[in-house]
Formats: sequence, structure tokens, C-alpha cells
Amino acid sequence: DLAQQAETLFGSGDCLRGKDVVITAGPTREALDPVRYLSNHSSGKMGFALAQAAQRAGARVTLIAGPVNLNTPTHVKRVDVVDAREMRDAAERAADLCDIFISAAAVADFRPASVAEQKLKKQEDQDESAIVLVKNPDIVAGIASRTERRPFTIGFAAETQQVEQYAQSKLQRKNLDMIIANDVSCAGSGFNSDHNAVTVIDRNGSHTLPSALKTDLAKQLIEIIAAKTQQ
Amino acid sequence: DLAQQAETLFGSGDCLRGKDVVITAGPTREALDPVRYLSNHSSGKMGFALAQAAQRAGARVTLIAGPVNLNTPTHVKRVDVVDAREMRDAAERAADLCDIFISAAAVADFRPASVAEQKLKKQEDQDESAIVLVKNPDIVAGIASRTERRPFTIGFAAETQQVEQYAQSKLQRKNLDMIIANDVSCAGSGFNSDHNAVTVIDRNGSHTLPSALKTDLAKQLIEIIAAKTQQ
Repeated sequence: DLAQQAETLFGSGDCLRGKDVVITAGPTREALDPVRYLSNHSSGKMGFALAQAAQRAGARVTLIAGPVNLNTPTHVKRVDVVDAREMRDAAERAADLCDIFISAAAVADFRPASVAEQKLKKQEDQDESAIVLVKNPDIVAGIASRTERRPFTIGFAAETQQVEQYAQSKLQRKNLDMIIANDVSCAGSGFNSDHNAVTVIDRNGSHTLPSALKTDLAKQLIEIIAAKTQQ
Repeated sequence: DLAQQAETLFGSGDCLRGKDVVITAGPTREALDPVRYLSNHSSGKMGFALAQAAQRAGARVTLIAGPVNLNTPTHVKRVDVVDAREMRDAAERAADLCDIFISAAAVADFRPASVAEQKLKKQEDQDESAIVLVKNPDIVAGIASRTERRPFTIGFAAETQQVEQYAQSKLQRKNLDMIIANDVSCAGSGFNSDHNAVTVIDRNGSHTLPSALKTDLAKQLIEIIAAKTQQ
């Protein structure tokens, strides 16, 4: 299988030597006013683990991170961003010079249509309210749709049901080279866990990696990605 | 002034000996679906600093904390909660047995009217969306409106404009004994900063404490609160 193939080919790992790798990680925060925001439970652990594994495999790594509480892996260039549009701008700039783009961030699909300059005050007689949302840029689809300077583009699909089916559909629709799917509804897997179990899907098929520490899983994923990009 | 008065009366501090103090701290997170939520920038630092200062001043302290990345102060009983209704339940239970209730948490005024059981999927042709919100319980107003077992009740007002005016109005409207107001729009003050500058307001007037480390400010506030509750 792919993992064994990778291990055989590259052994103890400089499988990404000379490669430029860009990885997005963590959630985005979409401001509603100066104090409130919309976000998600992504911890950034998987993206940070991939950045470390890619760097150890010899790559020059740029890590574009949403708001997370994680230390920057050694020798990795980190760019901090808050919302999806900042992440898009940073990702587009970094992608111009990269060989492999990995979108591990959980980018908010939508953001509040307007951001209040002052903290929104609750009215005493107001029992309901609403937040109007507009679509955020689709960062990974933007990179994957390039006709020039298009890196090998990898997405993530964090789902709570029909995981492989959604992931397959996302791979096709966004023109990705590979997608890494995981079920975030499982205990001991996905968001904020130190462990994860994923299925790697490309146009040739799928390959499931059993639950492992995100750091170990990241090493396996980097070997698979290296094998794929050198075919 | 109040701070000097407190220092004179209580010196180096067992000013809350024998008192039960309940403090809420941090933000609340209001789920939209299994992965997305609405929250705010409260770091919990001020509430945690108050818990530590109260404990050092001799109080038995229960700290009801929203999702924050902070260590529990020594000898403080911590109760972790996520959303406003969980915080309300924990606060109501703890308040039954307390002398002083300090609401330092930034409780979300509103929550999504419904929580999806599965991750909400974006439709390809969908450019807008909306989140319908309903009002959350007003925790500190609930405690302050008690006719029995009503603790000395202190609120916070984190505002970005007309700070004292809003705080005064909140003190009256919620029947609080004291309110601690701060301007979260100032750099180096308020949310996520290690420093804060506040104005303490009660029915007798207001008293501004200049910018200081939250830990030092917490000590001053605890002395003021102790003086007020022993009058």
C-alpha cells in the first residue's frame, strides 16, 4: 500500500528535501463586533504536526496559523492570521512559491455580513436576534483552481457523518490532488484530540490510517504525500 | 479613598477570612453545530486573578470557568462549563452558599436558537446564511434579584464606548451592589491583556484604579470588596 511504498522508498526521511510546503492550520475567527466572534473547535494540532513532520523530512515549511495555543515547530516559518480573508491573502502569497499546499485549517465557511465598530448592545425588550452571514473565500479551492504556479494541493474534510462520501465529493468539486478525511464526531479523534484516524483519498482510491498520535500520523501522511508528488 | 481605607483596615490581608466567594470567569461558547460556536475574546485572566486574590485573602473560593487556557489558582475549587446555561446552573448552585458573588465572565447575551446535531453543510449555490439567536439567561441579574440567600453581588461591564454610563445603568437595572467597569477598546487593557484599568462603581460613587497588572488590580479589588461587605 501507499504507506509501505513510501517507507520503502524514503526510509528514515528526507523525502521532502528541497521542497517548499505551505500548511494552513487552526480555526479562523470571524468578528461580529470588537468582542464577539464566530469560530470552531479546531485546535490546530494536526496542521502543526504536519508542519513539524514536513520540516523534519527536509522541506522549507510556511505554517499559516489561525488563533491557536501551540508552539511553532522548530525551523518552521509561522504566519499568524485571524479571519478567513487574512488566511486567504497569506495562503495565496505563500502558495506562489510552493510545491505542496496542505489546507489543514478549519476555515469558517461564512462570516458575519457586517462587523460592528462598537460592542453591540442588547436591548432590554429584545428576546431574539440574528446574524446575517456571507460566504467566505474558499481558500483551498482557489489554490487548486490555479492554471499557473499550481502546487500539489491537499485538503482536509472534517465531518460528522458520511465522511468518505463528503470527502470524495469535495475532492472532485474543488479539483484537489488529495483529501484527508476524518470523522470529528468520534471520541478520541479529530478536533482538540491528540489522536486522529484518517482516510487518505485521491483519484486512484482511498487508504485508511488507523488511530494514532497526530505526530505519528503526520509523519505517515508526509511520507504518502512525498511519494505521490514524486511519482 | 476606598483602597486606602481597605489597606488601613486590613493590612497585609486576611480580609476575607471565613467568607465564601463565587467567581465566574472567561467567555462562554454557544454551539451552532458540533464544530461551530459563537464566543468572545474574554481570556478569563481577570476572574482567575480575582479568585487567587480572594483565596489569599482567606476566602473559600469557587471559580466557575468558561473555556480558557489558564491554570487553576492554588486551593481554589474550579468548575468548568462551556455555555451560558451551564454557567447559570453552576452559578445558581454555588451562590446558595456564598457571601460574595463576582460575575467576571463575559457571558454571551445570545445563543443560536437551535443547535444542529450534525455539522451544517454549505450549499454550493448559497451565498448568504443567517443564525437566529435567542437571549441567554442573565446570570448576575438572576443572583442579584434573589430575595433569599442573596450574596453581595458584583458585576463587570466590558464596554468599548461610554463605559461609565453603561456601567451605571447596568448597576441600577440589574440591582447589583457593585460594578467594575473597563474599556476593552483600549490597547493594553481588558480582554486577553495582562493589564487592566477599571472604575469601581457602587450606589455611593465611583473610584478609578489606574492601569496595573491584573494580579495587582485583583488584590486591590478584593480589598475594596472586603471593606464594602464588612461595613
